[in-house]
Amino acid sequence: MPEENKFSFENLYSRRAPEGRPRVSTVKRGKYDFAVAYPDPKSIPFDGLVEGLQDALRVEGEDLAIYAHPQGYAPLREFVADKLARDRNIHVSPDDIILGDGSGQPIHMLIEVLIDPGDVALVEDFVYSGTLGQLRRFGADVRGVETDNEGMLPDALEGAITKATSQGKRPKMIYTIPTYQNPMGWTMTLERRKAMVEIANRHGVPILEDDCYADLRLDGDAQPTSIHSLDDSDSTMYVASFSKIIAPGMRIGYVTAPSAVLDRALVAKSGGSANTFASYAIHRYSTGQLDAHIEEINDVQRAKRDAMLAALGENFGDRAEWSKPNGGLFVWLKLPDGSDITSIRDDVLDKYDVGYHGGVNFAPDGTSGKNYARLCYGFNSPEEIHEGIAQLAQAFENEGAL
Amino acid sequence: MPEENKFSFENLYSRRAPEGRPRVSTVKRGKYDFAVAYPDPKSIPFDGLVEGLQDALRVEGEDLAIYAHPQGYAPLREFVADKLARDRNIHVSPDDIILGDGSGQPIHMLIEVLIDPGDVALVEDFVYSGTLGQLRRFGADVRGVETDNEGMLPDALEGAITKATSQGKRPKMIYTIPTYQNPMGWTMTLERRKAMVEIANRHGVPILEDDCYADLRLDGDAQPTSIHSLDDSDSTMYVASFSKIIAPGMRIGYVTAPSAVLDRALVAKSGGSANTFASYAIHRYSTGQLDAHIEEINDVQRAKRDAMLAALGENFGDRAEWSKPNGGLFVWLKLPDGSDITSIRDDVLDKYDVGYHGGVNFAPDGTSGKNYARLCYGFNSPEEIHEGIAQLAQAFENEGAL
Repeated sequence: MPEENKFSFENLYSRRAPEGRPRVSTVKRGKYDFAVAYPDPKSIPFDGLVEGLQDALRVEGEDLAIYAHPQGYAPLREFVADKLARDRNIHVSPDDIILGDGSGQPIHMLIEVLIDPGDVALVEDFVYSGTLGQLRRFGADVRGVETDNEGMLPDALEGAITKATSQGKRPKMIYTIPTYQNPMGWTMTLERRKAMVEIANRHGVPILEDDCYADLRLDGDAQPTSIHSLDDSDSTMYVASFSKIIAPGMRIGYVTAPSAVLDRALVAKSGGSANTFASYAIHRYSTGQLDAHIEEINDVQRAKRDAMLAALGENFGDRAEWSKPNGGLFVWLKLPDGSDITSIRDDVLDKYDVGYHGGVNFAPDGTSGKNYARLCYGFNSPEEIHEGIAQLAQAFENEGAL
Repeated sequence: MPEENKFSFENLYSRRAPEGRPRVSTVKRGKYDFAVAYPDPKSIPFDGLVEGLQDALRVEGEDLAIYAHPQGYAPLREFVADKLARDRNIHVSPDDIILGDGSGQPIHMLIEVLIDPGDVALVEDFVYSGTLGQLRRFGADVRGVETDNEGMLPDALEGAITKATSQGKRPKMIYTIPTYQNPMGWTMTLERRKAMVEIANRHGVPILEDDCYADLRLDGDAQPTSIHSLDDSDSTMYVASFSKIIAPGMRIGYVTAPSAVLDRALVAKSGGSANTFASYAIHRYSTGQLDAHIEEINDVQRAKRDAMLAALGENFGDRAEWSKPNGGLFVWLKLPDGSDITSIRDDVLDKYDVGYHGGVNFAPDGTSGKNYARLCYGFNSPEEIHEGIAQLAQAFENEGAL
């Protein structure tokens, strides 16, 4: 049609409308796909999920005709409550849990409920890009807090709160991934968890604990108890999901939070109840088989992690440093200061078929971390990981980064 | 714990945070459940969905390990594009479609992108309560436009736009359910659709067409073409879903909209891609069997509608008026002016086990329509519908409404 007849929405968008991102038909992935935190594709329990689904459909399938409880399928919320009590020392009622689309939707709901443009959110100095994206979309002033291999440095956290307050800005949340942190891989110690709770409580700042990787323990010490369990003041919000222990395509995660926050988060949730069809399958499968499945996938991932660490040693030697995670899905690779592996990412993907995410993706300031990369070992086989890391080292050499 | 140690979120909520609604453990439903627009529970194609799911898992199940395209499973978007072209004369690419959680999430996304507090949204004088709720949550000034059995009156629509403009408010959207309207049941004529497009275009107001019931044709004339297909200016947004033709618990709906709007709506979407597990099942099932299934459920619903209309005649006679819908899922019941069946709703549910929604739920002003009720015939059997409507008439008599 002639352009002059076209309708313009330009003056109609709301002030809160996000900027659009051009849509793309397909997202390019590498043969060696170390970019996204996928679980092992070959371990997804198809048969168990289908059997579970069929059982649920026989017993209560007609309830698919009904709009489910807005907090999600009650038996799955009961399962989650039991699991949280057993594994994370979190004692909440199924009524205090909302199921959502992965953990991403619950994180979105909590950010919407708490963050106005300009509000300060404190996060680890490198952290999950999805949360950074949501915080930015809601206009947060996102500030990184220095970490070492035990989590945020308490002095740095306290300093960041004090600084924000002295600027007339009250920090609205501390977001942390304390266990098998994404992307850095460390686990926050018990002492650091206690220190975070103490500092947060004293300054009146709530904590959002993202525990998505807690089940993916490969070796090392048992994990410290959850931050939520250490907080007597009822100021910690907690999210996790089935994405890493069953599959992201199931799109089921969950949140528990102080009651008044949860009431508001539920209203902010869009799309009604979390998917009942997928919840049926996850509930029936998980009740009998999830524990054994987690052991099985951790055996698989341990071999993959070991393959990646070995391959990094063989191909990078002392030309780089990298984390040795005891769990989770990624290795955090550091090249010498001054090298830039973030900006060559697309070239490496196109020319060498190796995918990764540059460190800048995980930087609260959006500019630090050029010489870092996150390498996920969940998707490829150990053999492919060996090939892919060799290819990656070659790519970095050829592109002048090593 | 002692109350004084409790953390207070009171000063931490964002300005845009919705008010919380107290959560409830269970939502009470009547034995005769005419309240919610459920499809027939006994017609849900469990076997077909499971077979479709199994086929998809065999062929591409490992992709559940991958975070899917943010717009949703591509083959299902292709199916939707083909169906829209064939059935609704809407010709868009699968790249111009986003799958969401039912139609509710797409409606939420579009409202977030367009509505600031105080913006005017024009809707039919009674209309779907879910959209009214979302519009109110985003602070819209929601105004009803008078309708007759052919849709909004063009003069009333033009008058409402002119009035808003003269008040310094530009209407941001016209929301309409043109086919088997919820709750009133009429279908907008072709002439009215053309008039709406002409008026909307002339005043620069976009249309949001909600076509969730279009497949549920029971009898009467063939439906007019979609509003989207009549709008050459590219100003119409269109949502629909699989909730009424497969099941709400599948939680899959979709939206197509002008490209720049869709770019923004995608960013506003939370929770990543729509559920892949459910999309697999819907896609495989729909490709071969959806058309026949729709014919089958319409046969079932026709008998239920006829049962409800007959029971209304037998039990209400000339003491009330009601719609005679040619499709969709509900009858719109009107009692004499002055009677109030909205405020006795909970009593009728508790004492007589009959559920319905009072007319006020569907009123843009939140106060009109006390003497109306929406009665859905999807859930109960024809026999139960006869019993339930008799019970309802008795309840209205006993409670002083008839």
